[in-house]
Amino acid sequence: MPSYATMSPSDIRMEIRKKHIVKPTSGMSRGYAQANLVILKKDLAFDFLLFCQRNPKSCPLLDVTEPGSPIPRLVAPTGDIRTDIPKYRIYKKGKWVEEVEDIVDYWEDDMVGFLIGCSFTFENALLKNGISIRHIEEDCNVPMYKTNIPCTKAGYFEGFTVVSMRPIPENEVVRAVQVTSRFPSVHGAPVHVGNPQSIGISDLSQPDFGDAVSIKENEVPVFWACGVTPQAVAMQVKPELMITHSPGHMFITDLIDEKLGVF
Amino acid sequence: MPSYATMSPSDIRMEIRKKHIVKPTSGMSRGYAQANLVILKKDLAFDFLLFCQRNPKSCPLLDVTEPGSPIPRLVAPTGDIRTDIPKYRIYKKGKWVEEVEDIVDYWEDDMVGFLIGCSFTFENALLKNGISIRHIEEDCNVPMYKTNIPCTKAGYFEGFTVVSMRPIPENEVVRAVQVTSRFPSVHGAPVHVGNPQSIGISDLSQPDFGDAVSIKENEVPVFWACGVTPQAVAMQVKPELMITHSPGHMFITDLIDEKLGVF
Repeated sequence: MPSYATMSPSDIRMEIRKKHIVKPTSGMSRGYAQANLVILKKDLAFDFLLFCQRNPKSCPLLDVTEPGSPIPRLVAPTGDIRTDIPKYRIYKKGKWVEEVEDIVDYWEDDMVGFLIGCSFTFENALLKNGISIRHIEEDCNVPMYKTNIPCTKAGYFEGFTVVSMRPIPENEVVRAVQVTSRFPSVHGAPVHVGNPQSIGISDLSQPDFGDAVSIKENEVPVFWACGVTPQAVAMQVKPELMITHSPGHMFITDLIDEKLGVF
Repeated sequence: MPSYATMSPSDIRMEIRKKHIVKPTSGMSRGYAQANLVILKKDLAFDFLLFCQRNPKSCPLLDVTEPGSPIPRLVAPTGDIRTDIPKYRIYKKGKWVEEVEDIVDYWEDDMVGFLIGCSFTFENALLKNGISIRHIEEDCNVPMYKTNIPCTKAGYFEGFTVVSMRPIPENEVVRAVQVTSRFPSVHGAPVHVGNPQSIGISDLSQPDFGDAVSIKENEVPVFWACGVTPQAVAMQVKPELMITHSPGHMFITDLIDEKLGVF
């Protein structure tokens, strides 16, 4: 098996396009940013773009394709959002109807793709700073929770922020804030530190998405805005057709993680 | 005369709305962010929003109004972009046809207003750090230049970056970069330091917009992306109707300058 970790983003995308890779992309092309995908038709695209612009912590845009073009010219000029993700989910009127390995047959000439920064990038930054990530240690998915933090409405789109949670040792909380603040285009600084009740989470052991993780003594739960937010919000509008990546099956961009740091 | 410097943004906007103030807004409501305005009709709004998203240094969006609504709900819920700027310019098919004190008669129900961060905020930050601003000392407009730095195209919108220039003492250049990096939503870090030729500027004494300023020995010209860029780019598309603020006559928001700092 080739080492996916050291392959270039364009090589990995080609393997995915040929359907030689059909599995979660975590750890592939290490050092390059991966992205969430939301595809909507043009009639909703302005409002959704505005929603992302107004809610940059949960919806940090890395690229938006021109209507009808499947090429993310800014972040992966040789890429194609119709084929370069291992698994896609098709939603009709807000209901998940199908999981597919490419969306060539679904593509229409008024579709717009939104590539949204993902937490892998800031997790790498935390790891490099000696701050471990519990769900990686426990080999499970990050725990995610619905909150009472409202998103800023834009046209049809409104809803509440979904957050991911990582337990951080008390004496590393300040450093964790500093490290992730550097990466606003991949969710950036936490939205909350400490008491889950304050943001409407009643029980950390019962995440709404993903898996629960253990929290040790002297650790504080730290919450970051999560890329599930825009999908959840878009779904509520029940668009005729919406396409997203399948959880964990991300679009691998040509962007070097470190270059997303603002200083 | 009331002290405009210490009046609240909402009070100043009311004075402007009543046409008691019809002059440049520099220095009014000190400590609050002022904004450039571009109004386009909905048919061009998606592409222009995408253009701003792709060119955040020259087009840092502070707010975008819902199509048809003149209220900038995020940055000034009591404001009205049709009346709260002292002077507007009306452009038809890319030609400046009129300067007016309100645009109530021009307003249509498919118009979208883009409020774009302005350099006043980072200039205040430089001043607070003991770095003086030459065009303020010389009581003239900041010098602005067309460059060969391409903007990232979005739909119909493309063109080159317009920059503003401030001479900075050699030993303050690093600090000037640090201070302005904190404010990405008002143009942020410089786009270039030093040799003007490298970015296509042949003669600093001949700015394309604004006024030339003196550059002293041991000073370096430092260039920031400028809010004139989106206006210049929009104008090239020759939209049926475009409305902007008149130079120096800005929209005063409720945003506290310091809260725009990212860390």
